[in-house]
Amino acid sequence: MSSAWLLPEHLADVLPSEARRIEELRRLWLDLARAHGFELVMPPLLEHLESLLSGTGRELDLKTFKLVDQLSGRTLGLRADTTPQVARIDAHLLNRRGVTRLCYCGPVLHALPAGLHVGREPLQLGVEIFGHAGLEAELEVMELVLDGLAASGVKRLTVDLGDARIVRALLARAPAGIDAAELVAALTAKDQELLARLSAEWPETLRRAVLQLPDLYGGEQVLERARGLLPQDPVITQALDDLAWLCGHLRASCPDVRVGFDLADMSGYAYYSGVRFAAYGEGAVNSLARGGRYDEVGAVFGRRRPAVGASLDLKLLSPRVGDTPPRAAIRAPWGEDPGLRAAVRRLRQDGETVVCVLPGHEHETDEFLCDRELFEIDGRWALRAL
Amino acid sequence: MSSAWLLPEHLADVLPSEARRIEELRRLWLDLARAHGFELVMPPLLEHLESLLSGTGRELDLKTFKLVDQLSGRTLGLRADTTPQVARIDAHLLNRRGVTRLCYCGPVLHALPAGLHVGREPLQLGVEIFGHAGLEAELEVMELVLDGLAASGVKRLTVDLGDARIVRALLARAPAGIDAAELVAALTAKDQELLARLSAEWPETLRRAVLQLPDLYGGEQVLERARGLLPQDPVITQALDDLAWLCGHLRASCPDVRVGFDLADMSGYAYYSGVRFAAYGEGAVNSLARGGRYDEVGAVFGRRRPAVGASLDLKLLSPRVGDTPPRAAIRAPWGEDPGLRAAVRRLRQDGETVVCVLPGHEHETDEFLCDRELFEIDGRWALRAL
Repeated sequence: MSSAWLLPEHLADVLPSEARRIEELRRLWLDLARAHGFELVMPPLLEHLESLLSGTGRELDLKTFKLVDQLSGRTLGLRADTTPQVARIDAHLLNRRGVTRLCYCGPVLHALPAGLHVGREPLQLGVEIFGHAGLEAELEVMELVLDGLAASGVKRLTVDLGDARIVRALLARAPAGIDAAELVAALTAKDQELLARLSAEWPETLRRAVLQLPDLYGGEQVLERARGLLPQDPVITQALDDLAWLCGHLRASCPDVRVGFDLADMSGYAYYSGVRFAAYGEGAVNSLARGGRYDEVGAVFGRRRPAVGASLDLKLLSPRVGDTPPRAAIRAPWGEDPGLRAAVRRLRQDGETVVCVLPGHEHETDEFLCDRELFEIDGRWALRAL
Repeated sequence: MSSAWLLPEHLADVLPSEARRIEELRRLWLDLARAHGFELVMPPLLEHLESLLSGTGRELDLKTFKLVDQLSGRTLGLRADTTPQVARIDAHLLNRRGVTRLCYCGPVLHALPAGLHVGREPLQLGVEIFGHAGLEAELEVMELVLDGLAASGVKRLTVDLGDARIVRALLARAPAGIDAAELVAALTAKDQELLARLSAEWPETLRRAVLQLPDLYGGEQVLERARGLLPQDPVITQALDDLAWLCGHLRASCPDVRVGFDLADMSGYAYYSGVRFAAYGEGAVNSLARGGRYDEVGAVFGRRRPAVGASLDLKLLSPRVGDTPPRAAIRAPWGEDPGLRAAVRRLRQDGETVVCVLPGHEHETDEFLCDRELFEIDGRWALRAL
């Protein structure tokens, strides 16, 4: 019983100062999404497991907590990612013909933590554009994310671009029987030895391309090197052209952001189908936001249509932005005087925080930074500095 | 596969217009709580089952989804109520001496729905005051809740007051061997036949009190009737005096709210230890908010201190408040002209919603109510009505 207050590993309470900052970020991002015409949706935390995992690959399956629904006896999953749910909403509930922009913000849960110091309950915020196959959708999502990170207070933003089509095109040219998942894992880990072993029997040009892919990382010269190194393939050429177009537009619209490339970044490979990106801030090892094109995500719900989106974890972002100073509050005595009660009510309606000191607690320390107090003078209530 | 979009029973997506209203209510209530000096906390959705259920009674146990933690092999619960978590935070993480005001807003999950048309994923918002034993705490929480409901747009507010001490005092006088849970269930159901059977062997005055308790419902005269009917007991007298004090103060501070009494209302009986209340709106059968005093709630975490709180389900509140008209938006063409892009950015920074029409989608219907459009005239971008 003495340990009733212990939490499971990788789960934590968010205490007041951090919670306030997360709430401010939440509003900033939802307002930004709204200003771009994204409509808010709230899918449930629990769904039938097969709906949550449809078409998303094994990675998400391992991450998903499972439980049994007493009402139906079926297995439910606690969502580990909101994107498939939003695709389901686009496909079945809204079922609009044209472009649909949706956003969401809510907890997701991971049965296994994504890293050593990473929590199992991210607060996932995301935006999705359905119904547009052109690069304008990627550009809009990236600009929104980069604007949001800058507005959140992240310094020295970097965005790395890649494209899932490149590796897919290489795999399509590889000899039959290749274990795609293993190759992707080797690329993710930049494990040259394993890559060499997996591609030992491949044609020389293809082998050289796969072995050098992990080095296709850096500034704009990466695209030129890739054009020389990768096989002549219309899909690869299109991917490189798309990345060049996006790079040019991002440089114009977000001149303070460093744009780079990482053609072998395979995180979340299972559902990306085209351009993908990851945004980083000053001194951050892990990406702060990720996104890209995943045109297949709605297919399992009976509606294969273009989809581009991005998401981030507000709990991960919060410690990376500057401290917001606590808003100053007003201390008021507790009392039955209607004049006092009216004054308190008016101040609160004006947006002030008024902490009433309950009887007997006059000598306690305030948790709020009270810089003024309400006091009575000549039968009227007025503010004075503390 | 064709049914991948079907959701489990009593779980639903919240679509854009409803989601927007819920988000507005969320901000309204969190801002109101903040204006009263309540600090936001965010406990995790999952905890060790024994922590979640400590001291809360069997009702919560039945409501709680259970699952196994792969990391520890232990049984976790998905929170069905946030109050015990906030009591844990007060007891162990903050551990302050003085008055602590905390608030929270997040989903809770119920393994079994609370009613026929009730969802299993309420969005629970709550406020808690720890550390003050006086009625001023009850008054502050009730005033906050009634102000919030009025500000949310609920008409014809009613608040029913009761006190868990009355039934506890009656049970303390009952002959040994009484099944308290069964009696409470009979009172909740206002089942006179069962009450008569359960109290058949009781002393006559006590029996009459229990049998008439379900009728102690209505306006102020209820308190006078209760004083005549219930046994002379200092605990009962104190409870009735407290209710009279609160009734008087609420009438003064919330003159538009009808104050009534329901001395046999036993919902959530397991953890209330004193005054309790439920607020209702026009035409609502179910309460919109509930709260009261539960001084024992932190005991299991090693810190028994006074606690008063209230909570509500924003998803239940949302359909009961008026429709908020969709905010008008601005339609803009997609284009690379820096002047256009600067104009769009400026409008968004001013709080406008600007929907860029992606190339090829010029003839689709807007989902937003666009009442203006951005157009080019003499090389400048300007707004015109649509």
